[in-house]
Amino acid sequence: MKLTILGSSSALPTSERYPSAHVLNAHERIFLIDCGEGTQMQLRKCRIRFGKINHIFISHLHGDHVFGLYGLLSTFSLMGRTTPVHIYAPENYDALLASHLKDFDIHLNFEIDFIPLRGKDPVIILDDKYLTVTSFPLKHRIPAFGFLFREKPYDRNIIKEMISKYEITAVRIRAIKKGEDFIAKNGEVIKNEDLTIPGPVSLSYAYCSDTKFFKRLPGFVKGVDLLYHEATFDRSLTELAELTGHSTTTDAARTAAEAGAGTLIIGHFSGRYKDISVLVDEARSVFPRTLAALDGKTYEVQHINDL
Amino acid sequence: MKLTILGSSSALPTSERYPSAHVLNAHERIFLIDCGEGTQMQLRKCRIRFGKINHIFISHLHGDHVFGLYGLLSTFSLMGRTTPVHIYAPENYDALLASHLKDFDIHLNFEIDFIPLRGKDPVIILDDKYLTVTSFPLKHRIPAFGFLFREKPYDRNIIKEMISKYEITAVRIRAIKKGEDFIAKNGEVIKNEDLTIPGPVSLSYAYCSDTKFFKRLPGFVKGVDLLYHEATFDRSLTELAELTGHSTTTDAARTAAEAGAGTLIIGHFSGRYKDISVLVDEARSVFPRTLAALDGKTYEVQHINDL
Repeated sequence: MKLTILGSSSALPTSERYPSAHVLNAHERIFLIDCGEGTQMQLRKCRIRFGKINHIFISHLHGDHVFGLYGLLSTFSLMGRTTPVHIYAPENYDALLASHLKDFDIHLNFEIDFIPLRGKDPVIILDDKYLTVTSFPLKHRIPAFGFLFREKPYDRNIIKEMISKYEITAVRIRAIKKGEDFIAKNGEVIKNEDLTIPGPVSLSYAYCSDTKFFKRLPGFVKGVDLLYHEATFDRSLTELAELTGHSTTTDAARTAAEAGAGTLIIGHFSGRYKDISVLVDEARSVFPRTLAALDGKTYEVQHINDL
Repeated sequence: MKLTILGSSSALPTSERYPSAHVLNAHERIFLIDCGEGTQMQLRKCRIRFGKINHIFISHLHGDHVFGLYGLLSTFSLMGRTTPVHIYAPENYDALLASHLKDFDIHLNFEIDFIPLRGKDPVIILDDKYLTVTSFPLKHRIPAFGFLFREKPYDRNIIKEMISKYEITAVRIRAIKKGEDFIAKNGEVIKNEDLTIPGPVSLSYAYCSDTKFFKRLPGFVKGVDLLYHEATFDRSLTELAELTGHSTTTDAARTAAEAGAGTLIIGHFSGRYKDISVLVDEARSVFPRTLAALDGKTYEVQHINDL
């Protein structure tokens, strides 16, 4: 699981930082999270294949998180896409999107499967073979949602020599990988731990932007391996953060600490900071394993126990 | 007068070419022509001051010419702008813009002065001390308009020595600069050409995108110093150009030749061309003074007689 950040600015982009957009690669499937202006150009720069994007998650309906979507969908269509796109967004966006595409004479060759986000509690919005995605409410000026991507447990790896030693069939191999013991021809019960080694660890990533400090949030992302949390302002601007529905560095770091997160990435930086090291330093004073979001950079998600 | 190209791609941007947006600097006033996705980031990269943009011209309502406008207006507002912005766009855009800003919770601190584009003939849409801007119809799939920016004639420069020689007053100086003769104290008529030298030449720039070949177009931009004309396709794709309402290199060059333009810049290149030299070569075979649009490049407008 790896995360590429396409945009790390707040509402005022700079020449170096584009508006919010993240790409999560899990099992070579690409999940696009928010779609600020310029997302399609950033995807090209990062050489991410458009055809692999089937799920787009929109946290809330502020332009710096959405204004790249029209161009991206239009590009999908011009590229000849026919497979559906699943869009997860606040519930009123379905009608707005349809009307805007119509206004701009955009005729898509593919279906949009719209999954509305709503409510005050976490909801599983995607559940497939490899992972679950849960949406949860944030606390912003308008309805906003975070997303938790959690890989399902991997199968255990069978030790190759054991297959020939005990003449294990394909059907039994599948069961053993799931954790079952094996009964040998002589009736002996071979314990699963003697047949297998652990598979890869399951990883998790959570995206929290935009939000002010919200005391339920650490509970929603408990034990997450990699937490992205906005930190628009330094801690001297707590009142402005409160007023605008954003977080300070301290808010982000406190959330990471209370959640027991593995690593924290902060981003959505206000354009006022030419040098963001002050923001990183502030966050690290509360939560040492803090990194700064950087446009175009890819971060390997590491398991909390491997840090 | 100088032109900076912010985006030279057609509807499918690449990592090197953004969707359409041009900036014309005339008398240190900035005219933004089209506003494709990413315009505000390109403006930052080119270090163009947002506060100097008071007039925005939108050629037509396809996303690759408009989708940067919401973000830009929002940024203007966040930067504290209070001076009005004049937006020249197809007549139905006023309502669409208002509704879209509302949908996205964007409250502007400044007025939008909307000037609708319509009709089948050239119309002067801006006329001030320094220049006129004329809109004229193009031929595309939906209503589309080109723009001609023409500097007004400069005053002649008075020869300094003549002022003291003939004791010319300030009021008379202004009249002489406009071309009047002067009557000396002894009643002698001093011819204007003995008092002045010519001022700078007036320059002109025209923007034509998107359009298929349109036989009235050369007449609309007759004698223009710098002509930007889209050339989405090479000439082997004439049928596709016709079908999509775009131009080939030959169409663009023929228009420049028939208009008697000074220099032609081609752009709005289809993403299929990794190397656009074939497009430039084709256009030059019809109209030798052809340049290729390049994102981030600034072109000095040269008078047709100075080439």
